[in-house]
Amino acid sequence: MDQQLTIVKVGGKVLEEEQTLNIFMDDFAALPGAKLLVHGGGRSATALAGRLGIETKMVEGRRVTDEKMLEVVTMVYGGLVNKNVVAALQARGVNAFGVTGADMNIVKAHKRTGTEVDYGFVGDVDDVNIGSLTTLIKQGIVPVVAPLTHDGEGHILNTNADTIASSLAVGFAEAFDTRLVFCFEKPGVLVNPDDDSSVIPFLNRELFQMYRDEGIIAEGMVPKLENGFNALNRGVLEVIITNVEGMSIPGSGTTLGE
Amino acid sequence: MDQQLTIVKVGGKVLEEEQTLNIFMDDFAALPGAKLLVHGGGRSATALAGRLGIETKMVEGRRVTDEKMLEVVTMVYGGLVNKNVVAALQARGVNAFGVTGADMNIVKAHKRTGTEVDYGFVGDVDDVNIGSLTTLIKQGIVPVVAPLTHDGEGHILNTNADTIASSLAVGFAEAFDTRLVFCFEKPGVLVNPDDDSSVIPFLNRELFQMYRDEGIIAEGMVPKLENGFNALNRGVLEVIITNVEGMSIPGSGTTLGE
Repeated sequence: MDQQLTIVKVGGKVLEEEQTLNIFMDDFAALPGAKLLVHGGGRSATALAGRLGIETKMVEGRRVTDEKMLEVVTMVYGGLVNKNVVAALQARGVNAFGVTGADMNIVKAHKRTGTEVDYGFVGDVDDVNIGSLTTLIKQGIVPVVAPLTHDGEGHILNTNADTIASSLAVGFAEAFDTRLVFCFEKPGVLVNPDDDSSVIPFLNRELFQMYRDEGIIAEGMVPKLENGFNALNRGVLEVIITNVEGMSIPGSGTTLGE
Repeated sequence: MDQQLTIVKVGGKVLEEEQTLNIFMDDFAALPGAKLLVHGGGRSATALAGRLGIETKMVEGRRVTDEKMLEVVTMVYGGLVNKNVVAALQARGVNAFGVTGADMNIVKAHKRTGTEVDYGFVGDVDDVNIGSLTTLIKQGIVPVVAPLTHDGEGHILNTNADTIASSLAVGFAEAFDTRLVFCFEKPGVLVNPDDDSSVIPFLNRELFQMYRDEGIIAEGMVPKLENGFNALNRGVLEVIITNVEGMSIPGSGTTLGE
């Protein structure tokens, strides 16, 4: 059996509230074995943009990223959120280091084109290069990944954090027994979004399609689950969707499977 | 003989002007052998602070860094400047990756206290931990270091880039034949600040003291030279102060020596 690796994607809402942030940091620091964190930061980006008089435009949950917004997300995701997470983990004895997809060419992407909406500097992932990261992880270092990639031609691109997490999970699946945990503000995929006890404990593609047809699973949850099933199909052993409390409790949240 | 390592500190003025930035990137990418870049970014930080209505206060060339200014420098140094430099080097075939002193605990510092002025979140370097960086450099990876450190208790600290460069140079001097190049907007240490042809080609401590007593060397150049002589005393083989053009030409600029 290979060494285990847990990849946690944590959403902006968890990181951007003092209380959940500290609980998350404690729980993530306590996770045994090799691990990697992918974070968001959308709310902080929107807040900084607002202070700078830059309008935030979202289309289907995706941020339209013109040159000014690209500066904002580069500062917020790559700087403010990433480095504060790294410092907070270091304070908990975790030898964290922060990266974007541009660093060591970890995640290469291309600018999204051909869509009806011009998303600007938004990148779709082409490939991941994890050789150096693998060496570092085996030395006990914990990568903290900001949702930014690059095109290899000098441009930073804004890229969905769920997609980065599942792309990395697939990349690492060859070298590690890899688990992928999507940690967000809800205890799992819910039948009723207003009822936290309505968690769907298990989802396969068939059930996913059924819930989707019924309109029970919709909006941002759809691409998250697509990312999750994609990872499962390509060698990732386990994909779980849960909240901070559920992250450390086996069997919590929604488990994806065949 | 050990492997050679060139550490270049580049000032904000070089990086923040489109023209010198591109020349610098080309020249740095072309430098042979192992290398590491430390950058500033003060002018961009002042500009962002201005847009956010945050006043910039400098005392003896040092930025007073309250909580709001710490957010600004974390975003600008750790995010905007660092990631754009990384992407620009990747586009030139250099496998760059960006770090702050918090990442992998590379530079640990403590908050400056006991001074007449309260500098806020400004850090003085305690020690450098370069084990993992050394492995990466030997794999051909080029670290790009932002002038931020951490205190090990969860706080990012704003730290002088010249000091970080010389501290890292001293740290690497055991494993590499290390050269330290301070690249700024002047061709070297000048006798007459208005005459770029008045470069002092060689300085030892005695000459430095003499020029200092005469008031020829003053202000920001004094700590830069102190950092340089400190590095020389502690195992760094060569320290040079020059500009972008001089960086690739042997014998250019001001060389420090015994």
